[in-house]
Amino acid sequence: MTTATEPARRGRPGYDRDSMLEVVVEAFNERGYDATSLGVLAERLGLSKSAIYHHFASKEQMLEVALGKALDALEAVFDAPEATSGPVVDRIRHVIRGAVLVLCEHRAFVTLLLRLRGNTPIELEALRRRREIDRKLRAMFEQSRAEGTLRPDIDPRVAERLTFGMVNSIVEWYRPDGPITPQQLADSVLELVRTGLREPSSL
Amino acid sequence: MTTATEPARRGRPGYDRDSMLEVVVEAFNERGYDATSLGVLAERLGLSKSAIYHHFASKEQMLEVALGKALDALEAVFDAPEATSGPVVDRIRHVIRGAVLVLCEHRAFVTLLLRLRGNTPIELEALRRRREIDRKLRAMFEQSRAEGTLRPDIDPRVAERLTFGMVNSIVEWYRPDGPITPQQLADSVLELVRTGLREPSSL
Repeated sequence: MTTATEPARRGRPGYDRDSMLEVVVEAFNERGYDATSLGVLAERLGLSKSAIYHHFASKEQMLEVALGKALDALEAVFDAPEATSGPVVDRIRHVIRGAVLVLCEHRAFVTLLLRLRGNTPIELEALRRRREIDRKLRAMFEQSRAEGTLRPDIDPRVAERLTFGMVNSIVEWYRPDGPITPQQLADSVLELVRTGLREPSSL
Repeated sequence: MTTATEPARRGRPGYDRDSMLEVVVEAFNERGYDATSLGVLAERLGLSKSAIYHHFASKEQMLEVALGKALDALEAVFDAPEATSGPVVDRIRHVIRGAVLVLCEHRAFVTLLLRLRGNTPIELEALRRRREIDRKLRAMFEQSRAEGTLRPDIDPRVAERLTFGMVNSIVEWYRPDGPITPQQLADSVLELVRTGLREPSSL
């Protein structure tokens, strides 16, 4: 909250930790994490630095919590029963749909994750978790190719990268206040890619 | 070329303008265009600033020439006879394949184009040309939907963005010295997306 001694600050008072983190992460995404000082964040939030420290111990902690939100949500998609049992084509469709929905719901946090380049332990751990997610999708495509539902001339690794390339690109342009719902977007992704996967019924 | 007064400089002597531009653009891509000083470029190239000025009038000119190479190549794909006449599904397949090949061949220059955010006249003009390319693919998807070869439940704008999202993501991981040729990669993209497009023969 702004105090009487900071009358000129723009900002929305009364943040909870989550809404504060959204503003912080938008700043990270625009300027880069390293280039965003606590002073910049205070200005954006309309809060004093000490008020920020009431919510977060450090800028590193903000990064860690934000990345955790994106990764927890993505991992939940890949750990769901629909992703771990049943026909592999259905499992692939489940995780593609789930990843699109997570991207739409947590766009700022996922954008932060996708733009990571740094070498701090927090960033390295996030990149490790992201690679593990990539690996799980790749393993599904490998299984799909082995059983004949993925075309044999497509490398499972390339299929994984192109699929995530398409899905991840959504953060660049999707706007939650636009005409397309996350569900519609997930449907479109599945329509565009699904028949690269041959359906079991067409075998 | 390094001179006797600059013995400590790393660098490869004997650049022509194109090979010099490759090194310059890799630096722009790693650090950001704005953050890359002429001093940094001289260090990377192992050249004096005056030797750089022998090839390029300014950093802006390097940017302009590099963006022009990416855009000229992409526009050539969209202006080719295969992109402007014949069945629209074939035209879409031609431009997707062509865009993949351009990305693989001019990876550094296309990466620069895709990461543009700035507001200089050179950048704005490049973004205008890029939007025009996007518009041409979108118009093809619109025509495809109108004739019934694109599924009616896919918005042509979404189809265009997802397709370019998949294609553009290739710059993030493709390595020309890896096991996958550009042609194989183009084939994989077309296999993954082609049957979201219904083939005319299946109507």
